[in-house]
Amino acid sequence: MSADSKFEATGRLTDLICGTASMNAVWSPQATVQRMLDVEAALARASAEHGVIPHDAVPAIVAACDASQIDAHALMTGAASGGNLAIPLVKLLTANVRKVDTEAAKYVHWGATSQDIIDTGLVLQLHATFTQLEIDLRLTCDALSMQARAHRETPMIGRTWLQQALPITLGLKFAQWLDALTRHRERLRALRERVLVIQFGGAAGTLASLRDAAPAVAASLARDLDLAVPALPWHTQRDRIAETAGFLGMLTGTLGKIARDISLQMQTEIGELAEPAGAGKGGSSTMPHKRNPVGCAAVLTAATRAPGLVATVFAGMVQEHERALGGWQAEWEALPDLARLTGGALVQIRDMVGGLEVNTGRLAANLDITHGLILGEAVMLALGDAIGRLDAHHLVEQCSKRAIAEGRTLLDVLSATPDVTRHLDATQLEHLLDPAHYVGQAHALVDAALALHEAFQP
Amino acid sequence: MSADSKFEATGRLTDLICGTASMNAVWSPQATVQRMLDVEAALARASAEHGVIPHDAVPAIVAACDASQIDAHALMTGAASGGNLAIPLVKLLTANVRKVDTEAAKYVHWGATSQDIIDTGLVLQLHATFTQLEIDLRLTCDALSMQARAHRETPMIGRTWLQQALPITLGLKFAQWLDALTRHRERLRALRERVLVIQFGGAAGTLASLRDAAPAVAASLARDLDLAVPALPWHTQRDRIAETAGFLGMLTGTLGKIARDISLQMQTEIGELAEPAGAGKGGSSTMPHKRNPVGCAAVLTAATRAPGLVATVFAGMVQEHERALGGWQAEWEALPDLARLTGGALVQIRDMVGGLEVNTGRLAANLDITHGLILGEAVMLALGDAIGRLDAHHLVEQCSKRAIAEGRTLLDVLSATPDVTRHLDATQLEHLLDPAHYVGQAHALVDAALALHEAFQP
Amino acid sequence: MSADSKFEATGRLTDLICGTASMNAVWSPQATVQRMLDVEAALARASAEHGVIPHDAVPAIVAACDASQIDAHALMTGAASGGNLAIPLVKLLTANVRKVDTEAAKYVHWGATSQDIIDTGLVLQLHATFTQLEIDLRLTCDALSMQARAHRETPMIGRTWLQQALPITLGLKFAQWLDALTRHRERLRALRERVLVIQFGGAAGTLASLRDAAPAVAASLARDLDLAVPALPWHTQRDRIAETAGFLGMLTGTLGKIARDISLQMQTEIGELAEPAGAGKGGSSTMPHKRNPVGCAAVLTAATRAPGLVATVFAGMVQEHERALGGWQAEWEALPDLARLTGGALVQIRDMVGGLEVNTGRLAANLDITHGLILGEAVMLALGDAIGRLDAHHLVEQCSKRAIAEGRTLLDVLSATPDVTRHLDATQLEHLLDPAHYVGQAHALVDAALALHEAFQP
Amino acid sequence: MSADSKFEATGRLTDLICGTASMNAVWSPQATVQRMLDVEAALARASAEHGVIPHDAVPAIVAACDASQIDAHALMTGAASGGNLAIPLVKLLTANVRKVDTEAAKYVHWGATSQDIIDTGLVLQLHATFTQLEIDLRLTCDALSMQARAHRETPMIGRTWLQQALPITLGLKFAQWLDALTRHRERLRALRERVLVIQFGGAAGTLASLRDAAPAVAASLARDLDLAVPALPWHTQRDRIAETAGFLGMLTGTLGKIARDISLQMQTEIGELAEPAGAGKGGSSTMPHKRNPVGCAAVLTAATRAPGLVATVFAGMVQEHERALGGWQAEWEALPDLARLTGGALVQIRDMVGGLEVNTGRLAANLDITHGLILGEAVMLALGDAIGRLDAHHLVEQCSKRAIAEGRTLLDVLSATPDVTRHLDATQLEHLLDPAHYVGQAHALVDAALALHEAFQP
Repeated sequence: MSADSKFEATGRLTDLICGTASMNAVWSPQATVQRMLDVEAALARASAEHGVIPHDAVPAIVAACDASQIDAHALMTGAASGGNLAIPLVKLLTANVRKVDTEAAKYVHWGATSQDIIDTGLVLQLHATFTQLEIDLRLTCDALSMQARAHRETPMIGRTWLQQALPITLGLKFAQWLDALTRHRERLRALRERVLVIQFGGAAGTLASLRDAAPAVAASLARDLDLAVPALPWHTQRDRIAETAGFLGMLTGTLGKIARDISLQMQTEIGELAEPAGAGKGGSSTMPHKRNPVGCAAVLTAATRAPGLVATVFAGMVQEHERALGGWQAEWEALPDLARLTGGALVQIRDMVGGLEVNTGRLAANLDITHGLILGEAVMLALGDAIGRLDAHHLVEQCSKRAIAEGRTLLDVLSATPDVTRHLDATQLEHLLDPAHYVGQAHALVDAALALHEAFQP
Repeated sequence: MSADSKFEATGRLTDLICGTASMNAVWSPQATVQRMLDVEAALARASAEHGVIPHDAVPAIVAACDASQIDAHALMTGAASGGNLAIPLVKLLTANVRKVDTEAAKYVHWGATSQDIIDTGLVLQLHATFTQLEIDLRLTCDALSMQARAHRETPMIGRTWLQQALPITLGLKFAQWLDALTRHRERLRALRERVLVIQFGGAAGTLASLRDAAPAVAASLARDLDLAVPALPWHTQRDRIAETAGFLGMLTGTLGKIARDISLQMQTEIGELAEPAGAGKGGSSTMPHKRNPVGCAAVLTAATRAPGLVATVFAGMVQEHERALGGWQAEWEALPDLARLTGGALVQIRDMVGGLEVNTGRLAANLDITHGLILGEAVMLALGDAIGRLDAHHLVEQCSKRAIAEGRTLLDVLSATPDVTRHLDATQLEHLLDPAHYVGQAHALVDAALALHEAFQP
Repeated sequence: MSADSKFEATGRLTDLICGTASMNAVWSPQATVQRMLDVEAALARASAEHGVIPHDAVPAIVAACDASQIDAHALMTGAASGGNLAIPLVKLLTANVRKVDTEAAKYVHWGATSQDIIDTGLVLQLHATFTQLEIDLRLTCDALSMQARAHRETPMIGRTWLQQALPITLGLKFAQWLDALTRHRERLRALRERVLVIQFGGAAGTLASLRDAAPAVAASLARDLDLAVPALPWHTQRDRIAETAGFLGMLTGTLGKIARDISLQMQTEIGELAEPAGAGKGGSSTMPHKRNPVGCAAVLTAATRAPGLVATVFAGMVQEHERALGGWQAEWEALPDLARLTGGALVQIRDMVGGLEVNTGRLAANLDITHGLILGEAVMLALGDAIGRLDAHHLVEQCSKRAIAEGRTLLDVLSATPDVTRHLDATQLEHLLDPAHYVGQAHALVDAALALHEAFQP
Repeated sequence: MSADSKFEATGRLTDLICGTASMNAVWSPQATVQRMLDVEAALARASAEHGVIPHDAVPAIVAACDASQIDAHALMTGAASGGNLAIPLVKLLTANVRKVDTEAAKYVHWGATSQDIIDTGLVLQLHATFTQLEIDLRLTCDALSMQARAHRETPMIGRTWLQQALPITLGLKFAQWLDALTRHRERLRALRERVLVIQFGGAAGTLASLRDAAPAVAASLARDLDLAVPALPWHTQRDRIAETAGFLGMLTGTLGKIARDISLQMQTEIGELAEPAGAGKGGSSTMPHKRNPVGCAAVLTAATRAPGLVATVFAGMVQEHERALGGWQAEWEALPDLARLTGGALVQIRDMVGGLEVNTGRLAANLDITHGLILGEAVMLALGDAIGRLDAHHLVEQCSKRAIAEGRTLLDVLSATPDVTRHLDATQLEHLLDPAHYVGQAHALVDAALALHEAFQP
């Protein structure tokens, strides 16, 4: 093998950084061609079943529907002049069939148009993609539910605007992620039903060339491929594809949010969480002390790329008449890229969440960094019962500023402020300033997310 | 009123080109402020119901929750320094309440955070948006179903790659659009259920400041606003918003496809369809003979803009911790823009479809433009029965080329070709070359789309 | 004024959060109409100058080219049916002229097409935008150059992958921002030359209706408006507009990078920088101790939105024939939005950079947080001189791990490692472990950025 | 070779549909690795030149900087755990050097950081890309200038809103395309100067590890690679990359506009232009008479995909501190995709323009389709001289409507209208209704575009 082909054989060199082997396999060139051939084989069987082509033609056609028999170079060259993969693939397939059975060769691709084969092959790849995503979503949600349960009562600082705000629990953070991912599983369930249908309309969407047998052939074709028959062909109605792209983009957005949080909590100065250590993972070539959030970077890369890919597929929806000029073709790389990135990001999060290192010492230390200021609201509300919210807000604001200015803890300042101690005694103040006592509904919200997860039926 | 405010009072000057009055009203500045105030009023009622604030405070608060009492300029100035609309709105509201009831003023916005008010206000606007979209979708689908029925058997040329391909029916084209829009109605139905929920979590999503009353207040708040309570707050889990954006973008994509088709069929050289003539609509200032596809242009504008807006909302999903820095705020103009554009595009298509001018003469004339070449497949398949598809393909291709080269009709050439007449006699050839006889499943597909439309339950 | 118009009069409620008053003024509805009328007035003068219309017609036309005389509501309604603003504007203008001079009314808009007026008006708005941006870029760069000079030698930790890496200087960080912004000023200079041209082609781009006077009228029109004459009209060649959008998007990207850095350094746990405190700016309604990075949030919002808007303008470039259907119209809101966001983000950064609060104590403390590990490279390279880079890497890595594991400083561990002390004595180690001694070319790079800034000619 | 690797060896199966062999070669995995190794080799030479590493180490390092010696599988696996290609590449390179020269192995990659190698390698690929684009731009512009000259006076119909408007010339259409492409050549010239610089800053951008030799090494490194030295490293200042993406996107937009026009003019019903016929190019598998605009489809695909890719690179600009987490990595596939698509689209247009089939018969026939209505403006302006523009507009509008309603030519109606014949006699009317007499400045505009093209200095 030449040096060149050795590298080309790796596909995109960066495929393993943001991608994942299983999703790459679903979308490999080999698989793409094989799925199209699977459709041709099923079409031959279905057509013969309903008398459209002779039964005798089927074995030779089915035997030739094997990607390893296809001349890849001829396929690509033919695609360049024909404008899509199906035109040369049908020619090469027909030629291969003719070598063994001249008569059978006449019945290859009978009644179908190029887009029927390309789109149905794509749907088969989406079928595999959805199955893989559901598996990895379940594993991720299972891992998250374990983490949420384990840290249901671990207090940590909640942060808004990148500033410390009020205490939450680490379990609540995990539950939030779990809740969003559970909704994505619901969406995926609905998506499967709408999207997993054959494309079968012939040259102008009327199946004219199949005459009366058309509906029966369509039904058999779909059954053979484990797909449904849609009410109408959808050559230039791409809402199913756009919905798929939208789902992938949304899921990647949620994964990106998780990676953003983890990477922020992994900052040297914060140190609350760490990606699981892998052999050599995240090591720096020049800074021996660093451990880079390599997994988070991969997920954030996917999240940076997904919106543009979604927009591409959406932009492509404006298609001309009965077959498009550019809009359809724009899906061919954008949708697989999106699927690979989403699948890869999900696996990264799955593995990260499962083995996340939690530094409870840093979680506790960071809660103490403002010397109690983060519990100002707890005090304010307690005071508010007595003196009204706005006055309490004003009073605690003054105490907080004094604590900052004088380098004292909020407890210290509050205890020395008669307007406060008039309403709250020392025990009350200490209780109010314990983060674990001010996490509101956090425990119940964790339980709610866990319950939804457990009740989910894929 | 100064000249300046007179123009500002129109909002965006271009709002009526691509937008629509009803959707503009849902998203007007006035409505945005009022919806936030509606949430504050409902919060006061719900809090009082569960003893969180005194019942006596409610009337003054509710009375002040009226946008006409809010100083718009102070609101905008305060938003610039506070970073969102809720911070100054709560201040202005509180000040207004204080003018009439000092005690009540202490209980304004009790337990909520800015984002609770902004997001729940947004959801109320989405509620109105979804309702309006469903109404207009239904009207559009009703109009399409009438058109599809009326033109169920009107033959027209199907076009692929912007080239004449095979005959279809005009009814099938309408049925294709109807089919896609019916799927969007299904999606909208599912979207309503997932999206129409309150946002209510307080400063860090724990509702800590409401203590034990939190769940009850949340339930009452939701009931008051005719929304559901979600399992967890969703301040930085924006999948519901992204799903909404994705839906709007998809719908606009489908509408763009319809406008593309109509505008192409309206070309001077094609002239098969025309937008309904309105008073002065589409007239050119310098070319008195033209009638511009103004409605199609508006829809295509929306379809050009939607993907970028969807991408913006998706990109914003990667939000930091418990409150975001940029990602959330990016939704504030992008989502309303998207809603306005989608609503406007839908109304354009609704009106266009209802009053579409169909030029059956041109439909027939265009079917004849290739002198029969478009029916080559019909002949090829008939011949294929006898001599195999590839040979038939080759033979018809030769005849077609000869017809083109010699300026003859395909019928003429075929009738003079013994390899053809050996298998097909004159009557058969004439029948094969009548477009109305080669529309395959078109009638059945129209019926299928109509049946789905009629069965749809919103 | 009704409550409704009061709010509408504010334009978008959120305009002041991410926008800025001066840029909003350039792009206000009032200004948009006035710029179009400025073009009509200049056209009348230029046409009269070359005998195309009578001199007597000019005064009445020019006097009527005043936005305050235009009926805003009629303008919008007419735009909805005509498909753009110029069609109704010309009608309203003509009617106004006719009221005072029936003869002059015949010569309004002579020879121009709608797009000539809309595009040239847009270019006038871009002219003002570019001027404002250059002013604010200069002010920002001046402020940055002062900050870079002031902190030329202030050591701080450099961070890669959100992990502490090696020391840099705060001056270098400022110099990096300055360097990028100086490049943007270069781009803006080139942009002005290419973009600030009139659009003038008449109905199909040939200026047919002006006969032989066309070139002279074009030249006078351009001179009057302080714009250049392009070689050809550019109605459907939108590269100038796309280049403008690209520039705005790039600049916003750089501003977003600055805001990202500042907001990360403002984190409660890091505390190295803070936005300048403004009256009430960034205060939280419920957490009195917080100071939210409101300016950074506004800039990051702009940076989240810009890519989608740029993509919209780029997508719109694919325009049909001599006047587009959707692609052109998609610019109408996207480009102004982009200009407003960019102008607003720039002003935020300008003000932020000028008044940035630098906490040198926290800068120093954060350099010490890893107990010397960040200077591992300094030691590694010194050791590398003696034992080779890979072995030195390995040795320092071991010491670093030991320091971490045993909670000791790196100096402590290195001093106790014979393989190290064999090559480096105590003084050398201490010197190597002082961050200020390991900032490489930082000072020179600051000087280089300052020199480029000072040499820049707008 | 297994079936799988056979297909993988083709990279993306669709690469040849929208791409081009020469640009694919620039961006192949093999080339990507080799360019990074070229940087490592140049770094070794430059470092030795300035005494940073021993001269003796250079030969072994340079000899090993050969992609064919790199284990592709190990590279990809290492990239997945390291997070980028350079980390494992340096390890593999060092191991290969060590096999032949243990001492030399210590000096591999001395002073550089991963991003230095990746970014500088990328710039080398951009260098080749820019060179290729300039060659193809020149060839395209040469071809366009020939076409514009040849058809300088060929009248054709100008179309606005997809409606026939006024006559132009085919030469003007070509000149419009030429003018836009000439501006892109100017932009490319400026881009080369700003973008073709090395990235060289070491771990935190200070080149600390090279001590005083840093500037000299940088200068030698740049000279060796035929690149310039930038004032500062630019690891997280990505404006150069964004500007490149923006340029590629803009160019693709212009190419898309050309393809849109050609494909519209190729419509069966219009037939004015046709892509050059290639062997089997554009043939349909089922419709023997069709010739699909395969080249236009490829270009329109690129134009649909480019905006999303540009947006991705722009979105990635918001990078953290001194090395980014996702934003940088998002460029790795987006920028090469964009370069491949742009290069491919340009070659398609180059070949299309060169061999474009012009059907002058159809051009003339289409000018006649409205029976003179398109020359209404010519008549209106002539009449306007006598009776004012508005009255003339009204009069011609009436005649046009009568012509349409009664199926007569405009000449016929005008000749029978006393209000017209009072001012224009039969000869004048006939002259006015000849399209070739109403193309305004078309000839001069063609000449202007040709002059700019000829004057262009790359």
